[in-house]
Amino acid sequence: MLRVAVGQLCLPVGHLARNRDHIAQTMDWAQREGADVLVLPELALTGYPPEDLLHMPGFVDDNLTALDELAAGSGDVVSLVGFVDSVPGAPGADTTPRNLANAVAVLYRGRVRGRYHKHLLPNYGIFDERRYFAPGDRLGGTWAIHSAEVGILICEDLWWPDIVDAQAADGAQVFLVANGSPYHRGKSAQREATVVDTARRCGAPVVYSNLVGGQDEVVFDGGSLVVDARGRVVARAPQFTEARFTVDVGLRPPAGGPRRSTFVCRPLRERPATPTPPPPLAPPADAFEEVYRALVRGLGDFVDGNGFMWAVVGLSGGVDSALVAAIAADALGPERVWGVIMPGPQSPPESVTDATELATRLGVRCDVMHVGDAYKLLAELGDRFPGGDAAAAGEGLVPRIRGTLLLALAERHGGVVLPTGNKTEIAVGYGTLYGDMAGGFAVLHDVPKTLVYQLCRWRNRVDGGAFGWSAGRDVIPGSIITKAPSAERMPDRPDREVPAPYEVVDEILERFVELAHPLDEIADAGFDPDVVQRVADLVERNEHVRRQAPPGVKVTSKAFGRDRRLPLTHGYRPTVTPAGEARPATDHTATVEDWLEG
Amino acid sequence: MLRVAVGQLCLPVGHLARNRDHIAQTMDWAQREGADVLVLPELALTGYPPEDLLHMPGFVDDNLTALDELAAGSGDVVSLVGFVDSVPGAPGADTTPRNLANAVAVLYRGRVRGRYHKHLLPNYGIFDERRYFAPGDRLGGTWAIHSAEVGILICEDLWWPDIVDAQAADGAQVFLVANGSPYHRGKSAQREATVVDTARRCGAPVVYSNLVGGQDEVVFDGGSLVVDARGRVVARAPQFTEARFTVDVGLRPPAGGPRRSTFVCRPLRERPATPTPPPPLAPPADAFEEVYRALVRGLGDFVDGNGFMWAVVGLSGGVDSALVAAIAADALGPERVWGVIMPGPQSPPESVTDATELATRLGVRCDVMHVGDAYKLLAELGDRFPGGDAAAAGEGLVPRIRGTLLLALAERHGGVVLPTGNKTEIAVGYGTLYGDMAGGFAVLHDVPKTLVYQLCRWRNRVDGGAFGWSAGRDVIPGSIITKAPSAERMPDRPDREVPAPYEVVDEILERFVELAHPLDEIADAGFDPDVVQRVADLVERNEHVRRQAPPGVKVTSKAFGRDRRLPLTHGYRPTVTPAGEARPATDHTATVEDWLEG
Repeated sequence: MLRVAVGQLCLPVGHLARNRDHIAQTMDWAQREGADVLVLPELALTGYPPEDLLHMPGFVDDNLTALDELAAGSGDVVSLVGFVDSVPGAPGADTTPRNLANAVAVLYRGRVRGRYHKHLLPNYGIFDERRYFAPGDRLGGTWAIHSAEVGILICEDLWWPDIVDAQAADGAQVFLVANGSPYHRGKSAQREATVVDTARRCGAPVVYSNLVGGQDEVVFDGGSLVVDARGRVVARAPQFTEARFTVDVGLRPPAGGPRRSTFVCRPLRERPATPTPPPPLAPPADAFEEVYRALVRGLGDFVDGNGFMWAVVGLSGGVDSALVAAIAADALGPERVWGVIMPGPQSPPESVTDATELATRLGVRCDVMHVGDAYKLLAELGDRFPGGDAAAAGEGLVPRIRGTLLLALAERHGGVVLPTGNKTEIAVGYGTLYGDMAGGFAVLHDVPKTLVYQLCRWRNRVDGGAFGWSAGRDVIPGSIITKAPSAERMPDRPDREVPAPYEVVDEILERFVELAHPLDEIADAGFDPDVVQRVADLVERNEHVRRQAPPGVKVTSKAFGRDRRLPLTHGYRPTVTPAGEARPATDHTATVEDWLEG
Repeated sequence: MLRVAVGQLCLPVGHLARNRDHIAQTMDWAQREGADVLVLPELALTGYPPEDLLHMPGFVDDNLTALDELAAGSGDVVSLVGFVDSVPGAPGADTTPRNLANAVAVLYRGRVRGRYHKHLLPNYGIFDERRYFAPGDRLGGTWAIHSAEVGILICEDLWWPDIVDAQAADGAQVFLVANGSPYHRGKSAQREATVVDTARRCGAPVVYSNLVGGQDEVVFDGGSLVVDARGRVVARAPQFTEARFTVDVGLRPPAGGPRRSTFVCRPLRERPATPTPPPPLAPPADAFEEVYRALVRGLGDFVDGNGFMWAVVGLSGGVDSALVAAIAADALGPERVWGVIMPGPQSPPESVTDATELATRLGVRCDVMHVGDAYKLLAELGDRFPGGDAAAAGEGLVPRIRGTLLLALAERHGGVVLPTGNKTEIAVGYGTLYGDMAGGFAVLHDVPKTLVYQLCRWRNRVDGGAFGWSAGRDVIPGSIITKAPSAERMPDRPDREVPAPYEVVDEILERFVELAHPLDEIADAGFDPDVVQRVADLVERNEHVRRQAPPGVKVTSKAFGRDRRLPLTHGYRPTVTPAGEARPATDHTATVEDWLEG
């Protein structure tokens, strides 16, 4: 039996002193719990991902100093603390030697007793670990923690059998895994399946400790797990909030033969207390609840982490700004949210009444500023140069005047502007750069339009009080949810029209952007080939707009931004094969051996 | 003797058909030259870097099809064509198998005769090759091209001795290197030194073929080289422009013993012609000329590559907008540049006269639009909510009105806005997001303020006609260059003041940003510690502004953007040690062996 304490903590990037103290308090708690070992998240000291802070002079040294301070204060609990280790700079994959490792330190009674270096360094999607780290060079090996042979892993290491199996072959009876695993839809189920599979395959319990908190484009959702040797989930921490718990983990007898562990901690000591009982199993979250809470957490940590006092949202009476305002009120409290209604020359009167009703229900301050006069003035200036696409020029004016005013209010009073565009609009370019896209944090950056509606309905169904939010149910007026989207009400601008109803566009986008399906395959799945081509062209054409968009939280398997890095200038256009044309059969089987025939 | 043809070509990203045809024409030319072998740049077919186009369905297949077409048309010249190869997806560094290789194909008489896979995959600075490619797994090996044993390398492979030496050990008598090496100041000298060193060390000539052209944040400068076995430069192509040339390269006798080459082309055939004599050695460029031409090339390729008809520049009468207008006129021709002067409530009258004179000298159209009324109107709207930092709010209004107007003009008439901020201002946050920073391409993104002055003076000294530009000398009025920078004329906004004269700030920035020196070391070099701290703090504080800035060409060793990736939300602040305090001595020598003592 091993008594394992898990610290599912929020450890923001670069806050070395704060993170050190938070870890130290958690080590004290684990000592009171009588734990044998404490498992903390990946890169607990530095936060994840530190990116080029790792190249900032002093940063790595300061992290090592903080680790030494933690080690000096360590007691009877073996504590696994994520940090950035300094290693000999071996060249290898390119000409720049990497002299850092993504590491876990084994702390015990005043000293660092060992270091584990992450082997698998993810360098895809949002990850860039090969930019910074040298991989661990010692496969296998276990630590003896009291009577148990323990395998230590860091995040990606768990997802490839070679690393786990090498430690199992060396006698690991239990795996302790430090993680910085970001959220997206469906990720927690994938994670749990991998943890369960590993436990079953190796006949060894797995303890999975994950970070919590928003970090720019990602949010870490926690959901730490303990799975026993038979693959049963014995503890599952809640998502999006800190948690700590202690579990007594049963171990199968060690393999025969001599102990292979190279790093050994002291034999068993007297246990000071019985631990807090493990928490009740958190149920798997509702799919919409999970996304909504990811957005609340991501927004709240961005606003607070960047020192903004409050947030301002331009309320249009539409569903996107309503959802952003609701998420902001839930994340920051309604007293830190300011709704501003800015009717333009073409705004229908109900946009003001709907937005006002929304603000009332959320309990946020709301003001009205008319921008028609400013529009008229600027349009007159531009009209001195007639011809061209006057509609295109005019259309940008109103959103940019609104953006300018919101920024002036925010900058004057220490706030941040929250733009309201959703993923669908950002994909097809239905949104104005520096206008409705202006601001510090794009809450709906990765939320497709159809999901916007679903999240509004979910939020209306639940009582905010159950999640610690101040507004109750039905916070978004029904008239906002049921009105037609503005893009479908723009007969004067056919070029800005969305090519099909949002449900269709979102399905095509999911296949094209998230799943990277070929266009022919998407058309074959039953979508109009012309619409498929048009959506793909719009996505491509608007890359330069997205490049300058503010960041927002990733909630799907593929977000725009660092998750999907495309050149601005390029000549490739994926196409649907026109009906009747044969699709090219590609055969690239010629090999180097063919030369003799030439 | 080996007759080597070098194609220093512009091969834009993703233009598979256009690049294929350009390569085919170059192969025909090499045949007419009687060349034995043609060396083309890295990833010649796809352009460099293709980024996540590599994950776009169809892209890699289409590139392989284009390669097959080139192979089918290949004749007696052995042609080395860069492309993306499809390889078995081996896992390794993380859980995502890489099934692509950065490759060179050996084409000869209708077939692909061999493939070389790049070994060293740069994944630092602006490079992300580990995101896409599996490294070559076959060290050493040579190709027999007629009587010569040839080593083939791709870019980074040349920069680490192991790869070169393995081929030398296998008998390589000459190295042919395909490159996609982006420009920054001083890079061409580094490159030449590496090529010369390699040739001397191995006693073998090196042929270095580089790309040409702007690609978003980088510009490839060409400057292809041929160095003989004694390390003498025998050919040096010009920078920033396409070039092709043929050189007869003398070879030392092959090493004794059996030939080790595994891929062999036909023995010598009759030579159809005497080649064009190699070009005169291009002299190393003037330091300022090199930067100026990099900016011209980068801007021109961005504007044309994205289908913009013309560019608009807001002319303030200051030195930054003057330089941007001059570069735009030189890159696009004056008839494709529109200068717009937008006096605000505080603009001095000479700003209009200076800007008008500039436009006249450059031969670009120029108009005046007064924005005072629009400012008054928007300021009144914002003043409904008094208090706070009214100056901060008011200051953003005028640049944002200007930005909105410029964008309206550009969008109406198919143009692109060129913002005018320089690297120093972008570093310390003296620039307004969505205002003077708004636009498609930030020409001076990586040009420090002191370099802006130097480039203006350089451009005034030279006759544009010598470079194919339409305006002659003295294109920038002296009054624009000699007036004090506006940042030093803003007594009402001490918080936006630059912390020291620009020459001092630029030196601190170079040490902090480009060289990543610790702040104490910068202070020790003779800079006021308070100023050093203030500059570092300003750089850090304005990361969120840079994140939304448009791209611009890298010309220094470290540009903001993909070259330097920092989190927006973080808690790390590098500090100067206050006078009198001891600087911390860091000692992290504790090792895992210490455990026994605990």
